[in-house]
Amino acid sequence: MQKYFVEPEQFGDEEVIITGQDAHHLVRVMRSKPGAKFIVSDGEAREALVELVEADSEQVKARILEHRATTAEAACRVTIAQSLPKGDKMELIIQKCTEIGAVSFIPFQSDRTVVQYDSKKEAKRLERWSKIAKEAAEQSHRNRVPDMKPSMSVKQLVQAMEQYDLVLLCYEDERGTQIRDVVQPYATKVASVVDKGEVLIIVGPEGGFTAQEVETFVNAGAVSVGLGRRILRAETAGMLALTCVLYETGEMGGV
Amino acid sequence: MQKYFVEPEQFGDEEVIITGQDAHHLVRVMRSKPGAKFIVSDGEAREALVELVEADSEQVKARILEHRATTAEAACRVTIAQSLPKGDKMELIIQKCTEIGAVSFIPFQSDRTVVQYDSKKEAKRLERWSKIAKEAAEQSHRNRVPDMKPSMSVKQLVQAMEQYDLVLLCYEDERGTQIRDVVQPYATKVASVVDKGEVLIIVGPEGGFTAQEVETFVNAGAVSVGLGRRILRAETAGMLALTCVLYETGEMGGV
Repeated sequence: MQKYFVEPEQFGDEEVIITGQDAHHLVRVMRSKPGAKFIVSDGEAREALVELVEADSEQVKARILEHRATTAEAACRVTIAQSLPKGDKMELIIQKCTEIGAVSFIPFQSDRTVVQYDSKKEAKRLERWSKIAKEAAEQSHRNRVPDMKPSMSVKQLVQAMEQYDLVLLCYEDERGTQIRDVVQPYATKVASVVDKGEVLIIVGPEGGFTAQEVETFVNAGAVSVGLGRRILRAETAGMLALTCVLYETGEMGGV
Repeated sequence: MQKYFVEPEQFGDEEVIITGQDAHHLVRVMRSKPGAKFIVSDGEAREALVELVEADSEQVKARILEHRATTAEAACRVTIAQSLPKGDKMELIIQKCTEIGAVSFIPFQSDRTVVQYDSKKEAKRLERWSKIAKEAAEQSHRNRVPDMKPSMSVKQLVQAMEQYDLVLLCYEDERGTQIRDVVQPYATKVASVVDKGEVLIIVGPEGGFTAQEVETFVNAGAVSVGLGRRILRAETAGMLALTCVLYETGEMGGV
């Protein structure tokens, strides 16, 4: 069943109004008729099974059949800080990590970032990425759309680190500590709490981090971890690290 | 450092000959000159650090500096059986799962496979997929290129299941057993052996499996598992399940 996110003010007690691209998707793409059922969420706490009452391509009115309290959100809130990769790889990262369960994305500039930062393009790019996150959240039945933060410098990212209780730096030259060495004790520590903390995963660009950047992050409290013996592409490391954290904190059974 | 796979007969005791697209890549793309160092593997047991001696765009001769015995291969051998997804998603699956560490791919046809099977295109498609696997194996410094099996029917896949000691069926409607419930005891069982067994991960097409297909696989010994509360796209499920199996069997530390 298709899911759509609406603004809280569109979400009434008995009725929901869907507008914009979602209305277009419902009417023109899905060709939904009165009586068609789908799920609506306000991206916060409310979610409902609804039935289409009337629609044109501008606006869809739907009646709430059943309020739902279930959540598809992970107890451990993971943010992906990704040094901007080339081409459209950031889009793949956002789509896949949203499906897997990330709650937030921070694009950042590091020494070996190839992509030139362009403040004029920034707004347009954030808008495009937010759209991808929204669509992926809808398709994967998330209760919330991940946040898309504006681009940061390494310095700004280091300052933002204090909001997290575990910061993992994915570093392909890390020979000692592997990700499980860190995530396993962390998961044990948070096992008894309902809200399993805030984790930040930092991933480098195609050329990796410089030794100085690694030192900067580690001095600020990040733990440098390896992700196995195979070299991962820039866009693969985050998905894999995110999967490991959610697996170990109990999102996929076994606890 | 770039890695190239050559046929065993090109791999001498003191010298390696690189031909074809890899020679082109070395000379035209990387613009490697005499003295340039790179890694060569025969895709089986031998791997060496080599130095370019002489080259034209047809052939590169390289001198072996150092034979290597290290392996980047996972102790647990995982095969991905993927019901053919739409568009070029199979290419993404092969590239990403090769990086992560799969040893083999089985494309198969199930009831809801949208892509029409075309035996004429089969050879060409396998060739393209094998090329993607080879490039991803080189880029991720694997010691071997994953096998690409010809397409199977569900019946043929069920017969092939007997070669594996654990078969995981990724099933989005599985509410009970989650992947960790199965992989954790499996990893404990194989923890003391060096070769951590053969695992098959079966992933459905966009529309999922029919109830009858699930029954067929489960009756033949597959374990139906969920991958968390979020609905994953067809191309994401395999990457995630593969990561979980390799994580739990000790490929990323913690044991």
